[in-house]
Amino acid sequence: MTLDPAAKKAVLRSFTYGLYAVSASDGNERGIFTANWLTQVSFDPPMVAVSVELDSSTLGVIRRSGQFAVSPLRSGQRDLAGSLGRPRSKAGDKVAALGDAVVRTESGCLAYAAGLGYLVCRVTAEAPAGDSVLIVGEVIEAVAGKPGEPLTMKDAGFRHFG
Amino acid sequence: MTLDPAAKKAVLRSFTYGLYAVSASDGNERGIFTANWLTQVSFDPPMVAVSVELDSSTLGVIRRSGQFAVSPLRSGQRDLAGSLGRPRSKAGDKVAALGDAVVRTESGCLAYAAGLGYLVCRVTAEAPAGDSVLIVGEVIEAVAGKPGEPLTMKDAGFRHFG
Repeated sequence: MTLDPAAKKAVLRSFTYGLYAVSASDGNERGIFTANWLTQVSFDPPMVAVSVELDSSTLGVIRRSGQFAVSPLRSGQRDLAGSLGRPRSKAGDKVAALGDAVVRTESGCLAYAAGLGYLVCRVTAEAPAGDSVLIVGEVIEAVAGKPGEPLTMKDAGFRHFG
Repeated sequence: MTLDPAAKKAVLRSFTYGLYAVSASDGNERGIFTANWLTQVSFDPPMVAVSVELDSSTLGVIRRSGQFAVSPLRSGQRDLAGSLGRPRSKAGDKVAALGDAVVRTESGCLAYAAGLGYLVCRVTAEAPAGDSVLIVGEVIEAVAGKPGEPLTMKDAGFRHFG
């Protein structure tokens, strides 16, 4: 059986995504990046999974600290989603550039606090996923932001590679 | 640290989701359900993950057959998303009710073919996720549907519990 690359891409491009800032902190190390491969995965307990590329500089920080924060971006934060999507090797210290918008959470994680709020998740499992790894975490902390509409891949005009 | 249930719900409700028919077949057993906790998780190889509730009647079918199909629903298929979301114990044989819209794929899976196309995935891993289990699969077959807009949770007016 041969996989039809054009059909594969067409179907994968029809998936619907929001855009999220995912961040982590471990001692002096910290990282933040834009994620769209992210979903809730359990109601009780509340859990979230995010797929992180194996070459992400934040992946090691998540693994070592055992936690990560998820901040749904709000409509209008398209440029932020774009800049947080650049690798650290090109973008430099993205956390520093966000200034006061990044806060230290009660559980010691770093979270972007100017989106629609944030969740801090304690890593409970991971699963191999090709060029990425799926990180599963239980929500241990939640702070709501000012109400608003979420930023979606579609609204942002971001083309999903598929 | 105490998790604030209202904040947890508010932030989780701001996540963005599409709606998908997920199906599987194993001998005479088969099942189909509406999923929204679903995302691509790898580009190369192309992989998808879906969170399946532990009490889903389709979960065993996916596990025994080692594969599942994902069909992104199209805008306008709100009622279908609702009916496929009902448990088999209440809805009966949902696959039979779909008639010719469900097809046997090349790899022997069952797929809903009247959405935006479908992918067949071979299960490569699973990860525990509270009241659900995260099923990870590699895309081994893809058929594109008639182009159109995806059905989103927001467009469907479905309230996400959070």
